[in-house]
Amino acid sequence: MAKPIEFYFDFISPFGYIGAHLMEEVAAQHGRTLDWRPMLLGVAVMNVMGLKPLPDTPLKGPYVRHDSRRFARMFDLPMNPPEEQMAPLPAARAFAWLKDRDDALAVRFAKAAMQAYWGEGRSMDRPDELVAVAESLGIDGGELTAAIASEPVKQRLRDWVELSLDKGVFGTPSFIVDGELFWGADRVWMIDRWLERGGW
Amino acid sequence: MAKPIEFYFDFISPFGYIGAHLMEEVAAQHGRTLDWRPMLLGVAVMNVMGLKPLPDTPLKGPYVRHDSRRFARMFDLPMNPPEEQMAPLPAARAFAWLKDRDDALAVRFAKAAMQAYWGEGRSMDRPDELVAVAESLGIDGGELTAAIASEPVKQRLRDWVELSLDKGVFGTPSFIVDGELFWGADRVWMIDRWLERGGW
Repeated sequence: MAKPIEFYFDFISPFGYIGAHLMEEVAAQHGRTLDWRPMLLGVAVMNVMGLKPLPDTPLKGPYVRHDSRRFARMFDLPMNPPEEQMAPLPAARAFAWLKDRDDALAVRFAKAAMQAYWGEGRSMDRPDELVAVAESLGIDGGELTAAIASEPVKQRLRDWVELSLDKGVFGTPSFIVDGELFWGADRVWMIDRWLERGGW
Repeated sequence: MAKPIEFYFDFISPFGYIGAHLMEEVAAQHGRTLDWRPMLLGVAVMNVMGLKPLPDTPLKGPYVRHDSRRFARMFDLPMNPPEEQMAPLPAARAFAWLKDRDDALAVRFAKAAMQAYWGEGRSMDRPDELVAVAESLGIDGGELTAAIASEPVKQRLRDWVELSLDKGVFGTPSFIVDGELFWGADRVWMIDRWLERGGW
């Protein structure tokens, strides 16, 4: 059986949200599944690459804000994020915690949290909003709150971030297909071709 | 008649070379022409955006080198650049000079210079190689050499770079389609859709 496609994402990125949506379709068409894995864009961009955050980058920041709306609209995805950028840690820790317990549930949580933030403008770094999303999926809000404040869960996310960097992942969404890294929601068409041709 | 698609490029980028190739096809399918315009990635990235050059960026540098070869291969474009990165000024100045005299010839020159550098590994900052490419198109090598050393031609390129920044262009290739900016060879499929749908 074909290996799952590794999908590295950070909740903080509109392109992760768009990319997840597009890639799920393409993966399904090729009989592939996605293995959702958290990464942290801030760690990759600032600590490892030594760059400033994208929203603070002249020219590119304004372009990306406009482009993410245009891109989502093209695929009929709602795109109404809150004014303020989200702190990605609470949601990423919640995902890491859930992934160890129930991978399918973790994916459902990730989709619901992305939908809540990017589609509905709900702040996913606010504990009450995060708990509300989790509870809508039958996850215990109290357990979630305790988990994301716990050292083992923090460490678990650090391990995931470390793994993503080891694999050369620097952006979100990133996909690893049979060992080959692809970066960007705008590369899903290329992965489609890649899978179609069986590589090069 | 529909306006030409503005195409901003820097000879220094493999994606400019790939993007020109892909976009020419898509533009033709929609009965559109391309208006080739020089920009300088170094000025946009380092001076305006305050970032380091892409090849020197950890994670992203190695990815881009691999990706440009894979991308070109997917479209049967030769990709064999020289080891050393090219200094883009001589070719860009030559293009700016030619564009004022004969726009079609300037485009043929740009394509030939990209093909020579990216496809055949010929250093386009070496005067003899640049002159050889120009002469193969019937351009006077002596005139070209004098032109690219002249202050008015240097200023002409500065004006083009200024214009590109005024338009929000920060990368190569960039395309402006009826006022809408798209960045990246990996967005040509999106411009295709955009033209198909007549905008949003």
